[in-house]
Amino acid sequence: MYLTKYFLPILKENPAEAQITSHRLMLRSGMIKQSSAGIYSWLPLGLKVLKKIEKIVVEEQVAAGHIPILMPTIQPSELWEESGRLDDYGKEMLRIEDRHGRLMLYGPTNEELVTDIFRSHISSYKDLPKTFFHIQWKFRDEVRPRFGVMRGREFFMKDGYSFDMDKDSAIHAYNRHMISYLRTYERLGLKAIPMQADTGPIGGDYSHEFLVLAETGESQVFYDKEITDLSLGDRNIDYSDQQAIATIVQDFTKPYARTDETHEQNLFNRIPNERRLSARGIEVGQIFYFGTKYSKSMGADVVLPNGDRTPVEMGSHGIGVSRLVGALIEANHDDLGIIWPSSVAPFDVVIINLKQGNEESEKACRQLYEDLILAGYDVLYDDRDERVGVKFATMDLIGIPWQIIVGPRDLADGFLELKCRKNGSKTRVPLTEGSRQLLSALNS
Amino acid sequence: MYLTKYFLPILKENPAEAQITSHRLMLRSGMIKQSSAGIYSWLPLGLKVLKKIEKIVVEEQVAAGHIPILMPTIQPSELWEESGRLDDYGKEMLRIEDRHGRLMLYGPTNEELVTDIFRSHISSYKDLPKTFFHIQWKFRDEVRPRFGVMRGREFFMKDGYSFDMDKDSAIHAYNRHMISYLRTYERLGLKAIPMQADTGPIGGDYSHEFLVLAETGESQVFYDKEITDLSLGDRNIDYSDQQAIATIVQDFTKPYARTDETHEQNLFNRIPNERRLSARGIEVGQIFYFGTKYSKSMGADVVLPNGDRTPVEMGSHGIGVSRLVGALIEANHDDLGIIWPSSVAPFDVVIINLKQGNEESEKACRQLYEDLILAGYDVLYDDRDERVGVKFATMDLIGIPWQIIVGPRDLADGFLELKCRKNGSKTRVPLTEGSRQLLSALNS
Repeated sequence: MYLTKYFLPILKENPAEAQITSHRLMLRSGMIKQSSAGIYSWLPLGLKVLKKIEKIVVEEQVAAGHIPILMPTIQPSELWEESGRLDDYGKEMLRIEDRHGRLMLYGPTNEELVTDIFRSHISSYKDLPKTFFHIQWKFRDEVRPRFGVMRGREFFMKDGYSFDMDKDSAIHAYNRHMISYLRTYERLGLKAIPMQADTGPIGGDYSHEFLVLAETGESQVFYDKEITDLSLGDRNIDYSDQQAIATIVQDFTKPYARTDETHEQNLFNRIPNERRLSARGIEVGQIFYFGTKYSKSMGADVVLPNGDRTPVEMGSHGIGVSRLVGALIEANHDDLGIIWPSSVAPFDVVIINLKQGNEESEKACRQLYEDLILAGYDVLYDDRDERVGVKFATMDLIGIPWQIIVGPRDLADGFLELKCRKNGSKTRVPLTEGSRQLLSALNS
Repeated sequence: MYLTKYFLPILKENPAEAQITSHRLMLRSGMIKQSSAGIYSWLPLGLKVLKKIEKIVVEEQVAAGHIPILMPTIQPSELWEESGRLDDYGKEMLRIEDRHGRLMLYGPTNEELVTDIFRSHISSYKDLPKTFFHIQWKFRDEVRPRFGVMRGREFFMKDGYSFDMDKDSAIHAYNRHMISYLRTYERLGLKAIPMQADTGPIGGDYSHEFLVLAETGESQVFYDKEITDLSLGDRNIDYSDQQAIATIVQDFTKPYARTDETHEQNLFNRIPNERRLSARGIEVGQIFYFGTKYSKSMGADVVLPNGDRTPVEMGSHGIGVSRLVGALIEANHDDLGIIWPSSVAPFDVVIINLKQGNEESEKACRQLYEDLILAGYDVLYDDRDERVGVKFATMDLIGIPWQIIVGPRDLADGFLELKCRKNGSKTRVPLTEGSRQLLSALNS
């Protein structure tokens, strides 16, 4: 993408309304624009990151055997009367009257709707287990929306719903979700810790939240240092192997890790002093097993092998996709701006032309651009007629992992410069090597 | 995907509420489930088709140089007061009061919101031309939603907005859209005819609708047979070549083609009798050039090279993505069910095991499945323990382009059968040839 043909509305000033880093950096780097309190348009750079996160979330859910569907944003209130949650949700639920005076609502979550789909079509244990998920816009009418996309009103969320014939199978679904979430966060370049959680308005008696450590986190968290050393890494996961999955979950849930809501100081004190840590954390996902809470009230039964009917065992499992954009920035930035992990970077690499208008320099940039596009990279070419300082500041701000710096002086010697945004290291690369050396650096 | 692990809730009976073929077939083949009047959940098969259409739409917009953004579903009413459209839209607009009593609405279209983004960030001709597009859920509170996704209330639409410094450049944007739309429809396997159109509530004085011929179409259309012979084919389109683009548009708009809204019998009568045709058509897209209608009322000005300020020239351009799913079915079905064009088929091929439980048969199916997945195909394996007739009926109903039929009798001879859903032709293929012959057939 040639930057002059793109839309990257950089703000020079720090926006007054932004209280936290991610909100400030998203506005400054032209990723989002607020349209109403807590409601945002995603501008080109922001949308690219959002879509990359969405893709990783989908891939890991499909890998775990979960089936994508898509439920609508506007729901009928009748289903919420059945579950008994219509009043529970209070003013956070955006209630709407349609032209015929029928009460509708903008879905804050989808347990009712998905249970209705289930009960309409599935009635036998033979069709179980099933997990459906969707990624759809939700609305929660927060009293005081703040922190940009971290606590917005309209937000993009992956929510999955598991249906099983008994508790044993439902716990396996819970465990599959925990591991697929851990893998998702790892692919996003995030260290997220599963912590025992309260269940809140979703209900149920078994829940974990996933928290990313960051100074601006909304929760105080308490954890055993051991848990931060755990990772799934490249290990092969067989989601059909119930025992293997349970063992991994055990590894990740054994060390103490709780938010202030579930924290118990006496348990915490048993951890050796040097491993006992407390920090701020951002919630980026939560999983619930709640058994028959919805299936009972809504009549979602299945016939068991012995002919008996029983309410289906359920769980629900959410990842805040738009919130993750903010969380990723909170965890990956410096004074100059964002530092995107390569898996979600809006572009893989930017070519910075130090002297727009210089024929040699433009020719070299265009050639590099073509070569890198052909090699499959997503490339931004800063072809603006701007001062060098402005170009460097913009590219450091928007945080593309690699910068290729091309200028007449280096070109005369047959060189260009490759800069890593993360550690600031610069390497002079001979132009005669063509793009070969560049590509191997980009792949590293 | 093994069908027993999937979710494909086939209806045996014709649903009473479905008046047209696409609605009936989408319900019967388990593509959608209604949650309220005119509001649907997309079940796995339906979602796959919706996503495939979305991908083609995005690719063709990006190829035309248009920039993806994503605006929210809930909009502030203030912007619509500025444009003067808040009252125009009447009861079709879903109005919402938030918890603070502020009037919001669920966007039926996005001219106001995108003009607000534009005026906040762009003020010079140097940043033009620009075209932004997004694919987002919209809501129009139809009095009588009907025909399934063809006239739903919550619907998925691509809408693009062009910003240019003068009319000449704006017409080029209009022409780019016409050609990118024609290419989109061709890739979808649809013959869509551009027809001169009324502008309705969007406003402006230049508009074309794209209509697919189908018996169940809502509009009567009148056209010169010559236009149905036109196609873009494989020709290389250079969207930056204003003259070349204009010439193609001229070719496609010269033959008479109008809907009943713009039809003029005296012009129609001038066409030679044998080329004069009338039929029913389904609208699958519309493009508008409306100049300064929104930029004037909302103060979206740009500075021209001579220093003057002028309201920016705009157009808007829509394709109904969810509606296209229905239109595709209206144009591609027979008495047995849907016949998907390969570009949007939910799966490329289905393997039908005639004798589930037979060891040889299952082994052959699994091997074929693995081979085809490895070759990059999206494969459904009908591994249900069902009667052969049920399997054939299901697969004809859901319309996957190719069926590989595997049974013990053919296997004993070293053969399997390849059936083309579209023309019903069956070919016996020697198993020893492995998947090679199959693959060449699938690629044909």
